[in-house]
Amino acid sequence: MSRVCVLGAGSWGTTLAIHLAATGHDLTLWGNRADELARIEADRENRKFLPGIALPDGVKVRPELEAALERAEFLLFVVPSQAVREVAERVRAVGARGVPVSASKGLEHGTRRRLSEILAETLRDETPVVITGPSHAEEVSRAIPTSVVAASADAGRARAVQGLCSTRQFRVYTNSDVAGCEIGAALKNVIAIAAGVCDGVGFGDNTKAALLTRGLAEISRLGVALGGLRETFFGLAGMGDLIATATSRHSRNRWVGEQLGRGQTLEQALASMVMVAEGVHTARAARDLGRANGVELPITEQVCAMLFEQRPPRAALQALMARDLKSED
Amino acid sequence: MSRVCVLGAGSWGTTLAIHLAATGHDLTLWGNRADELARIEADRENRKFLPGIALPDGVKVRPELEAALERAEFLLFVVPSQAVREVAERVRAVGARGVPVSASKGLEHGTRRRLSEILAETLRDETPVVITGPSHAEEVSRAIPTSVVAASADAGRARAVQGLCSTRQFRVYTNSDVAGCEIGAALKNVIAIAAGVCDGVGFGDNTKAALLTRGLAEISRLGVALGGLRETFFGLAGMGDLIATATSRHSRNRWVGEQLGRGQTLEQALASMVMVAEGVHTARAARDLGRANGVELPITEQVCAMLFEQRPPRAALQALMARDLKSED
Repeated sequence: MSRVCVLGAGSWGTTLAIHLAATGHDLTLWGNRADELARIEADRENRKFLPGIALPDGVKVRPELEAALERAEFLLFVVPSQAVREVAERVRAVGARGVPVSASKGLEHGTRRRLSEILAETLRDETPVVITGPSHAEEVSRAIPTSVVAASADAGRARAVQGLCSTRQFRVYTNSDVAGCEIGAALKNVIAIAAGVCDGVGFGDNTKAALLTRGLAEISRLGVALGGLRETFFGLAGMGDLIATATSRHSRNRWVGEQLGRGQTLEQALASMVMVAEGVHTARAARDLGRANGVELPITEQVCAMLFEQRPPRAALQALMARDLKSED
Repeated sequence: MSRVCVLGAGSWGTTLAIHLAATGHDLTLWGNRADELARIEADRENRKFLPGIALPDGVKVRPELEAALERAEFLLFVVPSQAVREVAERVRAVGARGVPVSASKGLEHGTRRRLSEILAETLRDETPVVITGPSHAEEVSRAIPTSVVAASADAGRARAVQGLCSTRQFRVYTNSDVAGCEIGAALKNVIAIAAGVCDGVGFGDNTKAALLTRGLAEISRLGVALGGLRETFFGLAGMGDLIATATSRHSRNRWVGEQLGRGQTLEQALASMVMVAEGVHTARAARDLGRANGVELPITEQVCAMLFEQRPPRAALQALMARDLKSED
């Protein structure tokens, strides 16, 4: 039994809190918005982000950051990617120790930093752990069999997080390629937007399968340029998460793309969501990283054009298909 | 404009015939069953296998094999995998020349031969071409954007087939790894059965994404042992086709697995289909190839146990998840 603090009370944070409390850990759940936390505590359910799933008694909701972090051995960061730095700075100010674990997926705007890099910098901890893989909260919270990855440069810490989270229905594999795991996790959201556009304009399973194949090749090209290992992209953090995100009705990123494909603007699509579509932020950071590293990212470029330059979805998809790629070799 | 004979009037054969005739080629369509061909000719539609899609005038239905093959420059074999040898022998007996092209997916029972190997042997032609990739007939016949691979050891022939079939909506990439392309095509049907079981027992997108990731690793392990190139399995013929097959309502193999997952027997599932689920045949051949080559194929083994030894689906899936695979590295 360990003492764990989950930072972030969105759907994934709440799910991890429920999962870890049910596994028997001493669990506190903190979130940025005191009003939402108070509602979660009153209802003993996160009706906004995870409706229908009761919090087990073991989940202790703590609106005070210091109280939430008290004696925590593991600090799970599950806030939106653009909030990681600010929350980490607050955690640092409180003087919390414990193993930092990043369970969000994205890249920081502007700095284009990976989330574990932000934790490492801010908390002055060289070996944070990353949890990633195909894991829709809606399914984990209903105990549907799920396999994820715990990645760290410190193999002992990766195994500790594996031990912390593993159950019969929630399988955790360790991995040492932190960069590859995080890049896979972040970039698949961009490709999932493109897959959603494909759905929205009425293309088929053939089209989407080809898009995902090219998409994973694109993720892998950029990821290797940024220090990831090629094989990571063909594991759970790459291919696995891409499939889960791009083919599921649970995915917010795919859903945003679908609305674009149906002719909505980005503003209209985002206005009708309660959750964050990380891919919208990540798309621009990924495009910039590609350009800075001389890596061609045709799908990411078209996603950015659709998101930020009003390129019509059909034109963007046609541009992808008209590329003169004649040989797979 | 070329003279092309399509051998096989199932859904994919009919689709390729329609596609090539619409592209302007001189096209004959032959099938093994004269009664079905007569009905197709009378209706100018293949109501059994491809309902709702009219044959263009350019499709000449020819029940006589010799007439169908007359002066054909390309011979497209699109018969069920277990019928390829017999049809190829009849084609050989007629003395047809022309480039043999295999567009079916599977392995021959007993010999465990790839289909292009059967064509090579029977027709004494060393460099047949293989057409494969994520291409549900139901979508290609409605001009939904699709990308496939034309593979041959003879690059000129691969390019010739690319030129023959390519349109704006049907993109053909060449590849030189014939073995890898065919093994990917055959084995993905086995993994798709497992994915269907996953659906049938009510598991989720997380579970299926993990299964497909492990499934592609399994395909790639066996494929490399049999002479395929690792990268082929991460292209259209591997990952692409696997996704299209395992996530689509159009897939017969996925559907068979779903029925098993819902508690039907294999006999019940097959009795309600008009089409062939190639994965049922391929599963046993793949298992035997794995055992003969010392390659572990845990998913294929469980699929065989469900198909041929009445192993209950939940037990089979649990056995997969209980495997002691703790590290992805």
